[in-house]
Amino acid sequence: MDDDRPLFFHLMAYADDADRDVIDMVSGDPDWEPPAALREGIREFADAPVAAYQYPPSAGDTELRELLADRHEVPVERLLVTNGGGEANHLAMACGLDAHSGNEVILTDPVYPYYADRAELLDADVTYVPVAEDGTLDPASVRRVASDETALIVACSPNNPTGAVYGESVKRELADIAEANDALYVSDEVYEEFDFSGRFHSAVGFDSPNVAVTNSVSKAMATTGLRVGYAILPDRLLDPARTRHMLTNVAVTAPGQYAAAKALRETPDSYYAETRAMLESRIETFCDALDAAGAEYIRPRGAFYVLARFDGFPGTLANAKRLIDEAGVAGMPGEAFGTAREEWLRFALVTPRADAAADRLTDYFA
Amino acid sequence: MDDDRPLFFHLMAYADDADRDVIDMVSGDPDWEPPAALREGIREFADAPVAAYQYPPSAGDTELRELLADRHEVPVERLLVTNGGGEANHLAMACGLDAHSGNEVILTDPVYPYYADRAELLDADVTYVPVAEDGTLDPASVRRVASDETALIVACSPNNPTGAVYGESVKRELADIAEANDALYVSDEVYEEFDFSGRFHSAVGFDSPNVAVTNSVSKAMATTGLRVGYAILPDRLLDPARTRHMLTNVAVTAPGQYAAAKALRETPDSYYAETRAMLESRIETFCDALDAAGAEYIRPRGAFYVLARFDGFPGTLANAKRLIDEAGVAGMPGEAFGTAREEWLRFALVTPRADAAADRLTDYFA
Repeated sequence: MDDDRPLFFHLMAYADDADRDVIDMVSGDPDWEPPAALREGIREFADAPVAAYQYPPSAGDTELRELLADRHEVPVERLLVTNGGGEANHLAMACGLDAHSGNEVILTDPVYPYYADRAELLDADVTYVPVAEDGTLDPASVRRVASDETALIVACSPNNPTGAVYGESVKRELADIAEANDALYVSDEVYEEFDFSGRFHSAVGFDSPNVAVTNSVSKAMATTGLRVGYAILPDRLLDPARTRHMLTNVAVTAPGQYAAAKALRETPDSYYAETRAMLESRIETFCDALDAAGAEYIRPRGAFYVLARFDGFPGTLANAKRLIDEAGVAGMPGEAFGTAREEWLRFALVTPRADAAADRLTDYFA
Repeated sequence: MDDDRPLFFHLMAYADDADRDVIDMVSGDPDWEPPAALREGIREFADAPVAAYQYPPSAGDTELRELLADRHEVPVERLLVTNGGGEANHLAMACGLDAHSGNEVILTDPVYPYYADRAELLDADVTYVPVAEDGTLDPASVRRVASDETALIVACSPNNPTGAVYGESVKRELADIAEANDALYVSDEVYEEFDFSGRFHSAVGFDSPNVAVTNSVSKAMATTGLRVGYAILPDRLLDPARTRHMLTNVAVTAPGQYAAAKALRETPDSYYAETRAMLESRIETFCDALDAAGAEYIRPRGAFYVLARFDGFPGTLANAKRLIDEAGVAGMPGEAFGTAREEWLRFALVTPRADAAADRLTDYFA
């Protein structure tokens, strides 16, 4: 099974063993500070009473659930706290497959590889719908393939790896297609806070029985290792999802939930705005360098990845390694994201050395 | 689905609403202090570098895995860190069912209810084997029902709810039965540190391709909410378990793993010895009171639960509520643990008021 993370580890081990300095643009791990209140929450938890160290409610810490439900304006019952966005997405996919007729999962190509691997784990059939070169998804192409065989439509916006942000009408159309085919649209919104287009619109607002939204604090708060995510589910999925969550994980880690709740309460909007500004500046610099290197690329409208194509240098694992050895820059091979971007490499702008990486790519390819 | 925890919540809500003071002996949540090094680990993590807040390796933090593998004298590759003992048990059951022929799960009666519910989630068939009145398991009774239909034998020792500790020969026999029937023996050892009999023997030592061991720091370190457990798996289950773990949870919480590693390194044996001594003293007092109340009971040889039967007072949910209202003591109905202990109530000795609870039971029943 070709997963993001093992490939990441493989490439990182390769980069570590290289004889030269290598700039890591492989992983999706933020390199910037989490909110001060999140660190402070961890510090406070060190002195919490013994009872705070015991099982939290399986569906999530009561205060955290209420904060998240308020933020998304949903009844608290519809929100389950999960072990990161990963468990939220897995729960929505597993319970959606059980609850809806059909066994087909519609994914985009390029795809976030965990969706495809989860479909395989769940013995589902995958149909890929290609997106446009700039990452835009035409919902008509989803409608064409959807049928009563379709159980799930899973899509991420802001998108990893394309950086596209689907507008409200695209998401509403995906919800309509799910409703028309007795399917569940799983809207992965973990990059919600990284929207540079102003077009982000949460699918939560559709209030559709055929829409599940998954999210987490991992990316927004620069703490992918905290493992605090959540799923907002339609009523019919609540009981099965609570049961599955309880029987696979029992509950989500208490210190992480405590710190996330404190950070949600106390983090000013300026924290997110500053992170966005910093990323926009990195995107600007990096894309300028790609212009100078003569590369094709997709300027991201959201998230923090740039897909780029260099003439005569397809995005294979071999070329990703060659770029490490010869240019000192580590990116993800496009072939990890399906078939549509095999010519491309994905660079994650999660390093303060994005400028230096840009210079190295210019020198290497120009 | 009747789970330990929802029933726990139901009973706790009932106790909270009662017009009188109620002593909680329902949950398995320790009431004593976690190791000082565990709290110190949480405190240190508050100031850890940004990189420490990002995804740990999916199989577990490198240092924590090595500490746990050393402790159990297994190659580090065989050990996966999981979201508590719950995920470890679920992983072993799910992957064991996939890897072995047959679809039957053999469980004891009384049973820890999560095993039965996991079997149901995994669409397996359950066969129950009754244990003796004192909780002792005769492996011959397992051998009689085992066949090529058997995929799993799941048993916990020290046992919840009976307090029995299966000796080495019993566990070795269960491993042999698994080997003879192409099945997996899942040995749940989360109460390892609470053995008052001196007879605890880990199934890890058998080094059998048909044995998986699951464990956690939750009970040993009085922190069921940390969600740091582990599975020690035979070679053939490693790849499927790593894949399933990655696709359901991605990774386990970083602050919890950091604190657990520090606590494993620095906690003296005296911490565990003092906890055992404290629990043995609670057991002594509580059992004396049960004698005075004229109850039948099983004196636990391990873990921290006491099963007791009061004449004319069967262990129904209705009677558990009556005990809350009329005696001010909350216990778990025996009917939650299968059919064999429907007459009994389970009392968890996880309150400093175990003495007072004992007095209340004596007054009520004597």
